[in-house]
Amino acid sequence: MNVPQPTFTFRHRTPVQLRFLDIDPMGHVNNSIYFQLMDLAKVKYFTALGGVFDGKAESLVIVNITCNFYSPAYLEEPIEVLTGIESIGDKSLRLEQRVVNATTGDVKCICHTIMAGFDPVNVRSVPISDEWHSKISEYEGRTL
Amino acid sequence: MNVPQPTFTFRHRTPVQLRFLDIDPMGHVNNSIYFQLMDLAKVKYFTALGGVFDGKAESLVIVNITCNFYSPAYLEEPIEVLTGIESIGDKSLRLEQRVVNATTGDVKCICHTIMAGFDPVNVRSVPISDEWHSKISEYEGRTL
Amino acid sequence: MNVPQPTFTFRHRTPVQLRFLDIDPMGHVNNSIYFQLMDLAKVKYFTALGGVFDGKAESLVIVNITCNFYSPAYLEEPIEVLTGIESIGDKSLRLEQRVVNATTGDVKCICHTIMAGFDPVNVRSVPISDEWHSKISEYEGRTL
Amino acid sequence: MNVPQPTFTFRHRTPVQLRFLDIDPMGHVNNSIYFQLMDLAKVKYFTALGGVFDGKAESLVIVNITCNFYSPAYLEEPIEVLTGIESIGDKSLRLEQRVVNATTGDVKCICHTIMAGFDPVNVRSVPISDEWHSKISEYEGRTL
Repeated sequence: MNVPQPTFTFRHRTPVQLRFLDIDPMGHVNNSIYFQLMDLAKVKYFTALGGVFDGKAESLVIVNITCNFYSPAYLEEPIEVLTGIESIGDKSLRLEQRVVNATTGDVKCICHTIMAGFDPVNVRSVPISDEWHSKISEYEGRTL
Repeated sequence: MNVPQPTFTFRHRTPVQLRFLDIDPMGHVNNSIYFQLMDLAKVKYFTALGGVFDGKAESLVIVNITCNFYSPAYLEEPIEVLTGIESIGDKSLRLEQRVVNATTGDVKCICHTIMAGFDPVNVRSVPISDEWHSKISEYEGRTL
Repeated sequence: MNVPQPTFTFRHRTPVQLRFLDIDPMGHVNNSIYFQLMDLAKVKYFTALGGVFDGKAESLVIVNITCNFYSPAYLEEPIEVLTGIESIGDKSLRLEQRVVNATTGDVKCICHTIMAGFDPVNVRSVPISDEWHSKISEYEGRTL
Repeated sequence: MNVPQPTFTFRHRTPVQLRFLDIDPMGHVNNSIYFQLMDLAKVKYFTALGGVFDGKAESLVIVNITCNFYSPAYLEEPIEVLTGIESIGDKSLRLEQRVVNATTGDVKCICHTIMAGFDPVNVRSVPISDEWHSKISEYEGRTL
């Protein structure tokens, strides 16, 4: 499978630390661990922009994840997660994340995640606010 | 989001046990945990058909995961994973898995996974063998 | 190492389900997973007695864990956790837990955990209440 | 509980990265995660000395863990694990590990682990070799 080029420049990188237990009996990083690593990167991305993840503040929930796996990752590899927001709609936004070897640039997986605005107190979806729309556009340096 | 009806009857169910740590600070089962639960269900599915997961035998690797999330899951819920194979090609097969509340039938997520035949010793993809094609068709009770 | 006989009869058993990722590169259940399994059993034990784990109600925190490991556990084993309270003091109680193969009785590890009463709202230790002292003695069928 | 002073100088430090899912519903790092972090630090310690963790080479297994918990850890804290070997016997060695806030020095837990020499191929305990005894003494800069 050919790895597609990104359509925008990633401005957010999270170096991640692998743990002994991330390696499954097949000898490489288990697929579920990629999602933990990308979760961490999402939290760091939105925290950098002022987001709060306390189960009370308006937040985002994952609606859809689509992930292509290109090559296995091993315990000793220097792994980082690139995170960027591709597009923003009224009620949701679309992230692209890439798990890569920071040294070689080898792409382990590319994952697109659709997240919807969510109000955890009233347990219902809410629009992406104009404030967040602006914050993200500014951070990404693109009109979104 | 409306939950689509399955296009075939699931013959394999794995009741899964949630752990305290599966619940993230948002108060519900973390998305990465669904992938652990579906991983377990995949191992049980293929083990039931005679598969071996020792990092040596010919096996399957995940090429693509596409997952829709419909509703959150909580610690006390009776959760099970439905697993079935939708279609088989020369080099890959496509699973559908549904994480559901076993009592209410409430669907937490629906996930399609494309897995390719893989030879871990020579680290290369291999075709899905006729033997496995037959085994799966027989188990599923459908021509695949 | 010889496995010591229990000094009381366990009244609480939690069958636990192992996951693919619980197995580390050494081929057996990773030691940190035992603590997840025993955590689950503790939650079930105290929930059975009416406890609440929401980060708000008075609760218990772990002060000390001492664990002996006797034999490795494998993915296909039927594992259960035996949980009982050995003794109760003014400010803490002492649990014994055993992770065992439910069929053979083979003991994987024996763990003693000292837990102290804790008020998460005021972030300070509190005594074990008389109510809980009674509840536990009644459940265990011993004077504690 | 007062935190005891170390009886030797730690020469090995592993900064560790917390993940969103390490935080349990009580709002702090789950106790089982400390064991994952200390596992990672052990692997790094022994790998630095030339150890191999492939399930084939002579290795070490955990026989006993004794851990005191002093204060909770939170997601945003800079955490590191200090690892050192306290003493070496014929068949086992004793590690001390401390999980600390790298900035404040605040001690989260102190854990002593007894590990025995182990031959995974023949599944039996083996002595700590003279070679390893020397390597460790040299690394620690103490006569062990």
